[in-house]
Amino acid sequence: MDYAKESLQRHYEWKGKIEVISRVPVKTKDDLSLAYTPGVAEPCLRIQKDINESYALTRRSNIVAVVTDGTAVLGLGDIGPEAAMPVMEGKAVLFKELGGVDAVPLCIRSHDIDEIVNTVRLLAGSFGGINLEDISAPRCFEIERRLKECCDIPIFHDDQHGTAIVALTAVLNALRLSGKKQEEVSVIVNGAGAGGIASANLLLDCGIRNITLADRSGAIYKGRNDLNDEKLRMAEITNPEYRKGSLADIIKGTDIFIGLSSPGCVTQDMVKSMSKNPIVFPMANPTPEIMPDLAKAAGAFIVGTGRSDFPNQINNALAFPGVFRGALDARAQTINEVMKIAAAQAIADFISDDKLSPDYIVPSPLDRAVAVAVAEAVAKAAAESGAASVC
Amino acid sequence: MDYAKESLQRHYEWKGKIEVISRVPVKTKDDLSLAYTPGVAEPCLRIQKDINESYALTRRSNIVAVVTDGTAVLGLGDIGPEAAMPVMEGKAVLFKELGGVDAVPLCIRSHDIDEIVNTVRLLAGSFGGINLEDISAPRCFEIERRLKECCDIPIFHDDQHGTAIVALTAVLNALRLSGKKQEEVSVIVNGAGAGGIASANLLLDCGIRNITLADRSGAIYKGRNDLNDEKLRMAEITNPEYRKGSLADIIKGTDIFIGLSSPGCVTQDMVKSMSKNPIVFPMANPTPEIMPDLAKAAGAFIVGTGRSDFPNQINNALAFPGVFRGALDARAQTINEVMKIAAAQAIADFISDDKLSPDYIVPSPLDRAVAVAVAEAVAKAAAESGAASVC
Repeated sequence: MDYAKESLQRHYEWKGKIEVISRVPVKTKDDLSLAYTPGVAEPCLRIQKDINESYALTRRSNIVAVVTDGTAVLGLGDIGPEAAMPVMEGKAVLFKELGGVDAVPLCIRSHDIDEIVNTVRLLAGSFGGINLEDISAPRCFEIERRLKECCDIPIFHDDQHGTAIVALTAVLNALRLSGKKQEEVSVIVNGAGAGGIASANLLLDCGIRNITLADRSGAIYKGRNDLNDEKLRMAEITNPEYRKGSLADIIKGTDIFIGLSSPGCVTQDMVKSMSKNPIVFPMANPTPEIMPDLAKAAGAFIVGTGRSDFPNQINNALAFPGVFRGALDARAQTINEVMKIAAAQAIADFISDDKLSPDYIVPSPLDRAVAVAVAEAVAKAAAESGAASVC
Repeated sequence: MDYAKESLQRHYEWKGKIEVISRVPVKTKDDLSLAYTPGVAEPCLRIQKDINESYALTRRSNIVAVVTDGTAVLGLGDIGPEAAMPVMEGKAVLFKELGGVDAVPLCIRSHDIDEIVNTVRLLAGSFGGINLEDISAPRCFEIERRLKECCDIPIFHDDQHGTAIVALTAVLNALRLSGKKQEEVSVIVNGAGAGGIASANLLLDCGIRNITLADRSGAIYKGRNDLNDEKLRMAEITNPEYRKGSLADIIKGTDIFIGLSSPGCVTQDMVKSMSKNPIVFPMANPTPEIMPDLAKAAGAFIVGTGRSDFPNQINNALAFPGVFRGALDARAQTINEVMKIAAAQAIADFISDDKLSPDYIVPSPLDRAVAVAVAEAVAKAAAESGAASVC
């Protein structure tokens, strides 16, 4: 199928991929008096007295905003807020279909960090959570950090944490299958944008010690003098062996490659230079860092990409619907590391031992049961880690 | 029915009166590839090339935001954004059920005019129109004026213009029934908040010349020294007879009373002092300026209120669903006076000569055909007045 042509045609026919519907009847005068004036005054007054009632008396317990400024959309870059909307509507579709979560796409006409933070902050009372999306790095880090400080609802930048969760899932099941040990493996995370940095952080939080992060200039290490704030912080906590050099240099002898970088930057020689039975996740989308057949031919034991047309699609859609479903169910005030790790583990555990194989380490994002399992694990982790308002 | 108690109970059961649903299937990998990546890149690029395509390729042609700061909600006053949400969700329900318009409630956590304007301005690319709601006067005037200047989509403060449209409808049909002439009647508009000022303006635009606006201190006239900017402007264009004094003074001999003020401020003696066959619209909600039976007993020929339990409910719900439906259909860039008058006339014309009676001058807001008629008239007026982008 010519996806581009066919998708365009469908979008013209769909005239929007989401819509807002009423959950209440409006046929009689009584209907009107209950859903609207004069009856509606009573729930209003209840919420005024106790703001927590907004979760019981409005849609807040089930609704999130999907917020972007359109600066880092797909592989397309800064295409602007209006042009980003088809992606955000698609995201809202997945939120509802996979997680049962109502999602409202909001595309902000600004590149200014203060303006973006203010806009979201002022709207936080209307939603149960905020999914940040396709905001360019390193701006996305500051925007998320500041919003977490000033908002009382979960703030989750999916390009960071959704990606990190599914990357961790893939690593967990690759280790399970290969018998390699978490505390012994060495990992290269290539790409120091939103996804790469968050993935490295989550792997660290999960107990993987030997991680080297790399950007276009090669390994990120303490003392490299061209690092932005975020990379500087990462240099402090990764690369324990102080590796320096290009990707080709540092990939030698490592067990796991995670690519969140650019198409075609990994060669077969690089894969051959890795440890025995290397695990290769070239997740760049739509064109991976190395095509799966080439990686396999070069000796990769397990390969996973972001694409649906190869085995092992390591896709954010496995995570965010269930993560928000669980966070909303627990009325979590944040989505913390414990909850993210629980989500990754739940997706990994979704595949039983007898099903697990090199070509099947992650479930299909279309399997509705995945989000249910993730939601349960996330809600439990929220309660246990003190993030939940209700149990 | 005890509306307060019953409505609260229902709200707990409903858990939100609106929800966001998907308009597209997500069952197969192809579904995913068309609604989301990789296919979705193509509609994104189309919109990037021509921003007008956002109306064809996303939900923008059918979706509005219902925006409030929660400062003037129902008769409850400044109850805050979260507590305002049940009203905003109710509004969204009416938008969808009566006008087929998707509406997203956004309650802003700020009282600051700059912050409110900025928030809405930055989100204007995500919607086809903005319905401002329950924002206190006189702040609402500046907020609307500034948003109209900086946004390329219709901005419509319903407490002003929705109210003005239905007040005009009531006046038009009262004149039709009473035989009084538009250019000869004298009108008192009591209440110089959002609804009162907008109603006076629209009546003026429609050719009614002798209008006196009053606030708690009585008639607003040129030279009164306690007027805010908005009232000063109104003093210039209303009250051609320079009436001064209290409501009891100025109501004497007038033909039409429109109340958008406070409960019980009109006495039977005042109604008796009006011209022959007076027309009395005490629209204060939920308690009118004078109860209909008292007004009738004092000689009122036609009475209409904001309430559903008396004849002639002069309700905004008659206007806003069709007004936005029409504005969206015409892709109007604004909702101008011509469009508002067309809406009022369409609602008035909805009642045929043989049906028109003192107890039936406005149709039921539950009649779905009203919004259809309004939408048609508004879209036509948009095209004729140059407000429409498409015909």
